[in-house]
Amino acid sequence: MTHDTDVEALRQRRENLADRLDVPVILWSGRSSARNFPANCFPFRASSHFLYFAGIPLETAAIRLEGGKMTLFVDDPKPESALWHGEMPSRTDIATQIGADAALPMSELESHAVGAATIAAQDTMTALQQSRILNRPISPAKVLQGIDLELAQAIVALRLSHDRAALIQLRQAADVTVQAHIAGMAVSTNASWEADVRATMEHVILANNMSCAYSSIVTVHGEVLHNDRYHHPMQLGDLLLVDVGAETSTGWAADVTRTWAISGQFSATQRAIYDVVLAAHDACIGKIRPGVEYQDIHLLAATVIAQGLVDLGILRGQPEDLVEMDAHALFFPHGIGHLLGLDVHDMEDLGDIAGYEEGRKRSDRFGLNYLRLNRPLRPGMLVTIEPGFYQVPAILTDRDRREKYRDVVNWERLTQFADVRGIRIEDDVLVTETGREVLTAALPTKAEAVEALVQGDLSSLEAAYS
Amino acid sequence: MTHDTDVEALRQRRENLADRLDVPVILWSGRSSARNFPANCFPFRASSHFLYFAGIPLETAAIRLEGGKMTLFVDDPKPESALWHGEMPSRTDIATQIGADAALPMSELESHAVGAATIAAQDTMTALQQSRILNRPISPAKVLQGIDLELAQAIVALRLSHDRAALIQLRQAADVTVQAHIAGMAVSTNASWEADVRATMEHVILANNMSCAYSSIVTVHGEVLHNDRYHHPMQLGDLLLVDVGAETSTGWAADVTRTWAISGQFSATQRAIYDVVLAAHDACIGKIRPGVEYQDIHLLAATVIAQGLVDLGILRGQPEDLVEMDAHALFFPHGIGHLLGLDVHDMEDLGDIAGYEEGRKRSDRFGLNYLRLNRPLRPGMLVTIEPGFYQVPAILTDRDRREKYRDVVNWERLTQFADVRGIRIEDDVLVTETGREVLTAALPTKAEAVEALVQGDLSSLEAAYS
Ligand SMILES: [Mn+2]
Ligand SMILES: [Mn+2]
Repeated sequence: MTHDTDVEALRQRRENLADRLDVPVILWSGRSSARNFPANCFPFRASSHFLYFAGIPLETAAIRLEGGKMTLFVDDPKPESALWHGEMPSRTDIATQIGADAALPMSELESHAVGAATIAAQDTMTALQQSRILNRPISPAKVLQGIDLELAQAIVALRLSHDRAALIQLRQAADVTVQAHIAGMAVSTNASWEADVRATMEHVILANNMSCAYSSIVTVHGEVLHNDRYHHPMQLGDLLLVDVGAETSTGWAADVTRTWAISGQFSATQRAIYDVVLAAHDACIGKIRPGVEYQDIHLLAATVIAQGLVDLGILRGQPEDLVEMDAHALFFPHGIGHLLGLDVHDMEDLGDIAGYEEGRKRSDRFGLNYLRLNRPLRPGMLVTIEPGFYQVPAILTDRDRREKYRDVVNWERLTQFADVRGIRIEDDVLVTETGREVLTAALPTKAEAVEALVQGDLSSLEAAYS
Repeated sequence: MTHDTDVEALRQRRENLADRLDVPVILWSGRSSARNFPANCFPFRASSHFLYFAGIPLETAAIRLEGGKMTLFVDDPKPESALWHGEMPSRTDIATQIGADAALPMSELESHAVGAATIAAQDTMTALQQSRILNRPISPAKVLQGIDLELAQAIVALRLSHDRAALIQLRQAADVTVQAHIAGMAVSTNASWEADVRATMEHVILANNMSCAYSSIVTVHGEVLHNDRYHHPMQLGDLLLVDVGAETSTGWAADVTRTWAISGQFSATQRAIYDVVLAAHDACIGKIRPGVEYQDIHLLAATVIAQGLVDLGILRGQPEDLVEMDAHALFFPHGIGHLLGLDVHDMEDLGDIAGYEEGRKRSDRFGLNYLRLNRPLRPGMLVTIEPGFYQVPAILTDRDRREKYRDVVNWERLTQFADVRGIRIEDDVLVTETGREVLTAALPTKAEAVEALVQGDLSSLEAAYS
């Protein structure tokens, strides 16, 4: 194994779990998914819950946790595997590396499974194995009940606040992600299509022996929110919206978005909207501290954006009233952000158990429904702040919406901003004891600084920051 | 959709299938596999059999083929998906693009499923759906029977010989793969670890909007045959074994290996073994033509390698006798190559139905068991030729083998080649009507030319080829 492990931190996590739960727990790591035939798999990605307590991405393994103790279940490599895969560590070696108290072959798991809680694996083969070994149906993680629900709640309580070992990894992911964005900016003016910029950025991630935490978005059509194609040509008048993040080899993620002018020079209209989004970004980050409601951060972004669009003549009215009627969501139709950790939307496999404080439910409001996090902030939480402005045809051409917002949108004025299809600015913000720390602060947000990086002009970057 | 389709070629493939099979066929495209939570998936890779007849990677779709006609089953995008994914083509648009004769929603598939043959999908969710809709168990593809076996045999007969449309794609994949290797060579001397070279090479693939056809191997430990980690430092005395191939957006693959000296200069021992492997490579390619048995190509490689090792004083005896007793397999323990097409090991999901001529079985011999292809060559087949030499500890320290080969291996002499852990040279070779064409011929194989590329000296590359 080539992964760093912090045995003490892992042990502490298990003890913290034992403090909250008094049933045994079995967590499966999962198995590789076949790509086009069984021997040609996607890169293995272990279950995040397994990674949290075991620390390394072992394939086809399980851990049993009880009273702070951990038993590792994994098979020793077959002798013939040395031919194809080289010498692999033995079960005992692995147990030592992760600080397991005991280690057994997988065939022993069934006899240690009575009464254990678990969380459903992402791959169907492992989920079927879980049902068989626990001798009961395993619910999809979104409809948990009984001890599995208790386990999920206990894990959420732990994973909501990152420990020192997690933060070391999260900072590494953030640092590499910043480098990737800087590299992407530097090649954009001369790139011929989106794929060139994507390749340059993922190059940085791979060269650091990390992987992408999610499918990169690198697009001149920022108004398509989940755009994972890269075939459009780069044209000098266009904006490029880039949402790319690295993940360390033990699974910890970063999630960063920047939007820049391909020419290295925002047009006046692009710059005007960019500054509105940046104002929301800065205002939100400035409010982050323990005790603050994340939904209030979201509503703050909505208000700042509404104010900015009023100032530009795109919206009419009082910002608070506009937010009340969800007029901001015509242009900012998603939430201000989400939890970040081992998953880019941390613990989203558990549905809203992670994102929503117990007893809270998603709002039906157009402007709030997509909010993925609705909790009071607490120290150790890592969240994204990612306000945006988009001209989504599916929203803006909708007849009902045009009717509802007839008086508050100046549609005529809006046409002057046709060169702004989508802008988002996203950073990763750690809640500290007294306030906040932006883990991705090394990547500029100010328009001049971004322009300088795209132009490859590092001295004007310094000037922008002096 | 942004993929090129050749509607005429697709139609011809369906008619060719109808000529061989008179039952209806349903092929599913499959669905994305979750990475760490359901909304964070691996990039979608459609079933190769689906791609062969439908031409584009539609997710969660199926096609029904009967009498040369094709019905597409796919659901229209939901209205709200336009927000996240932009305007998507309708079912009718897609049907036009792929030349389908009819198009229906997925809910109609069940009523068109009676008596249809199929091939199991790679993802378990789709396989379960296949069983439900066809109302029978779907065998894993390696134990096919009845109409599913007939379908597999018919598809193999078609996919064994590539048509014009396939060759256009395969040449594109080969060309980009050649560029990737040249880029990897150029950065090696200054790279700090394997991950740097991998990143440089995958950059080229991504910049061409292609993906990797398989997990890249970029390693100073070439003796580990399936090495998919990249954490070793680059040291000037080492060889780097690099097996990297691109895949086009419609699924067609390349598969190329080169081995070079990180310093740009082979040592005398590295060069000596390199030339043995290259001699086998050249001899095998020279023999490729219709009617030749691929197993004979494999045995030719074994003989050339045995001869070379005798000449170097590593083996003792007559090459033919050494091959007879599998002594070559101590150092060349895998097959000379395999089929290449939509899969890097083409149609390996069907087990040996594709690779082995009907009635033939895998040999038990150590030196033949790993041979993946055992058929007479015919025009349109694309195969790899990939001889190698490896010092695999699991093989060479095995007590029984050391005893068995005591008299034919000069173990003392072998120690002088300690700086050769693994060498492989792999090209993609098309069987033509009269002989062969190496699709990857633009990538040099001669030691001097490879050295020149690693040294970044393009003029000496020209000299090496003049
Ligand atoms: Mn995000
Ligand atoms: Mn190969």
